Amino acid sequence: MCDVKDMTNKVTKIGLLGFGTVGREVFRILEEQKEYFARKMEYAIEVKSICVKDMSKDRGIAKKYFTTDYESIAKDPEIDIVIELMGDCPEALEAMQLALKNKNSVVTANKAIMARHAKELFELAYANGAEILFEASVAGAIPVLRSIREGLSANQIQSLYGIINGTANYILTKMTQEGADYEAVLKEAQEKGYAEADPTADVMGHDAAYKLSILAMLCHGKIVSVDDVFCRGIHYIKPVDIQMAEKFGYVIKLLGITKINGEHFEARVHPTMINKANPLAHVDGAYNAIEYKCNYAGDGMLYGLGAGGAPTAAAVVSDVIELVHSIRSENKINLQPSGFLSQSLVPAKPIDIQDLKSRYYIRFSVTDKPNVLSRMTTILGKNNISVQHLYQHGADEDQTIPLIIFTHDTLERDIRQALREIDKMDFITQTTKIIRIEE
Amino acid sequence: MCDVKDMTNKVTKIGLLGFGTVGREVFRILEEQKEYFARKMEYAIEVKSICVKDMSKDRGIAKKYFTTDYESIAKDPEIDIVIELMGDCPEALEAMQLALKNKNSVVTANKAIMARHAKELFELAYANGAEILFEASVAGAIPVLRSIREGLSANQIQSLYGIINGTANYILTKMTQEGADYEAVLKEAQEKGYAEADPTADVMGHDAAYKLSILAMLCHGKIVSVDDVFCRGIHYIKPVDIQMAEKFGYVIKLLGITKINGEHFEARVHPTMINKANPLAHVDGAYNAIEYKCNYAGDGMLYGLGAGGAPTAAAVVSDVIELVHSIRSENKINLQPSGFLSQSLVPAKPIDIQDLKSRYYIRFSVTDKPNVLSRMTTILGKNNISVQHLYQHGADEDQTIPLIIFTHDTLERDIRQALREIDKMDFITQTTKIIRIEE
Repeated sequence: MCDVKDMTNKVTKIGLLGFGTVGREVFRILEEQKEYFARKMEYAIEVKSICVKDMSKDRGIAKKYFTTDYESIAKDPEIDIVIELMGDCPEALEAMQLALKNKNSVVTANKAIMARHAKELFELAYANGAEILFEASVAGAIPVLRSIREGLSANQIQSLYGIINGTANYILTKMTQEGADYEAVLKEAQEKGYAEADPTADVMGHDAAYKLSILAMLCHGKIVSVDDVFCRGIHYIKPVDIQMAEKFGYVIKLLGITKINGEHFEARVHPTMINKANPLAHVDGAYNAIEYKCNYAGDGMLYGLGAGGAPTAAAVVSDVIELVHSIRSENKINLQPSGFLSQSLVPAKPIDIQDLKSRYYIRFSVTDKPNVLSRMTTILGKNNISVQHLYQHGADEDQTIPLIIFTHDTLERDIRQALREIDKMDFITQTTKIIRIEE
Repeated sequence: MCDVKDMTNKVTKIGLLGFGTVGREVFRILEEQKEYFARKMEYAIEVKSICVKDMSKDRGIAKKYFTTDYESIAKDPEIDIVIELMGDCPEALEAMQLALKNKNSVVTANKAIMARHAKELFELAYANGAEILFEASVAGAIPVLRSIREGLSANQIQSLYGIINGTANYILTKMTQEGADYEAVLKEAQEKGYAEADPTADVMGHDAAYKLSILAMLCHGKIVSVDDVFCRGIHYIKPVDIQMAEKFGYVIKLLGITKINGEHFEARVHPTMINKANPLAHVDGAYNAIEYKCNYAGDGMLYGLGAGGAPTAAAVVSDVIELVHSIRSENKINLQPSGFLSQSLVPAKPIDIQDLKSRYYIRFSVTDKPNVLSRMTTILGKNNISVQHLYQHGADEDQTIPLIIFTHDTLERDIRQALREIDKMDFITQTTKIIRIEE
């Protein structure tokens, strides 16, 4: 079996592509823990080369490690494992493909590339007797991919709810705890380094959609295009929404949700009202959590830090340790990297969001005109929307009155039709906003 | 490499030892999920034989499966994986040893045997090119062993707090929610089947101590004798303790705790007051949870069902699936079953509980005599115990007055010395009780 790598060599050599926050921490962990890791493996781990963009920067590490040539690392026959931390760019995909073709195993934290190219990378790895692991791509330090793929592998995962973007959760938590505006909290988060200068990917849910697509693959063996994941951000959430959630026993979280029931398959990311009694409601700040429901294991939750240099690097290095065992025991492929056989990994389209049946929170912005309520509720009734709570909030600074409705179970198609009609009315001052409710 | 098992055979054969609640569910999952598992593995899983005590019982399953002879199953060369669910008895250990000696891999849910014999079983497995997995032995459906061994393997786990006994947690939760007496709740739990007729192992912490010993092995690579795990049950907790906890912002949970800091190593099981803000404080009823703190991944928690037929069976079958991959890929040993090399798994003694430094809740039971407080506090002061809160609760039915003290950080040795002196006083009506506090 041992036709490629020299197994007499007691050192596992690493090529590191990218040396940002995570890359530096990976290097540090491998240096700091040599003695500890010797208790876990017979084989030492050694970084051989590091690919960076700018060779001139002083990184306090011997120059001999660095190169700007990722191809030479990916192809290096002395290297056993290529760690890809280049971010979402074509070179990252190219480097992984090149490494696998050269029978070098890959560890990556790249959610965007795994969400788009997982299956082809798995097949490339398999064809070349190499392996690919990507625990760090979802929820940082939380061992969620491994738990779904291995620890829960006897189960069908019926539903999964994830707080999988720390920036969005930090902002919503601050808004909840301090009653502050979205804009003010975002600005503060940017100043403190919790949000990036361009926060779009985090606050608009795109980052969470990538992660959800990966989670759906591991949960259900379905390849979901990120473009098919319904995705809404948190930018429209106002303090009044948070107060109304609180008043009726809910908390607002940006959730990635996937559910399966026979042919019915959901994959969506949006701000969601969840019951205060739900453990996810207590997951605050930059923490991530994944709540799941299985056919045998029942429900459970995994909770921890979803981002940050050291936590993400710890996930990367844990993958490396697994690969060291695997490479050194001459094992070809142990578990399928998705938990499913490649031929069982099939493309699937989630239901159209219009076909979602859910409870809804609706925030109308109205001015005080005659018969507002009766005109509105007539349209709601005509569209099969039945109201559970109706609450009129005090007027805000521009004399707009937020009128709040919690519906019973409703088809989103009906909600949208009703809102199209209502939003044309003369008493509506701003586009009506909705928040989906999960019990 | 393939000198033992016939790899051309596309079926993995299982021998099942024990057919109680968990065994029956294992059989059911393997039957029900044939189609689903075919998406995960190229190899079918088939139960070949089941060992039971009583052959005459009608189990609604063909007689051909059953035998009373566990040895024949353990030694059967046609069998690939022996699932041991016999409970804590000498035959269970014997069967596992026999299976491993015959190069049959083992999956077990046996916490008592794993706590006592893990290292010798690991070495036996290794020597025979077989494997042993035991995810179901701790916290049922929660993939905690795998998470520590693999997902967090780059980390040193500095502390771990576990709610790892569902019965004790159910009782404490009911006492907290309903203000009920221990005895009344225990009786109700027994009637509902949440507690066994003899609840000793659960309520006295012995079950949790076995699990903690296994967790400590996976966290630190230390073999801890269960006899060295300090262990106290929940039987002495009274409603007044729960009220006092509540009043000062705490919740009482039976925790398994292990901590490590250089040479300082703790492993203990006892009722503990934890802050209401701690995620563990919200883990109610029959749920289990494990909270950990790592040097790189930071802190996290795994939460789910800790017992029950289907959840435990799901953990067993997940181990089976991992072994199917491993056996069929001709891999000898992939990960060390503890995450540590056998020679690094060293016996270790936790600190004497007397050397514990902690905050303490102390419940004195006193009668109204002159100078009670001054006599008591003089002894406390003499023993270096400084009081943070002192609270006198109303007299209970037998005119005993609970006098409650929360201490600052104190050595348990000093607490014990002080209580020995105070409990001799004429104003003390019952032995003083303590609850350790973790922040």
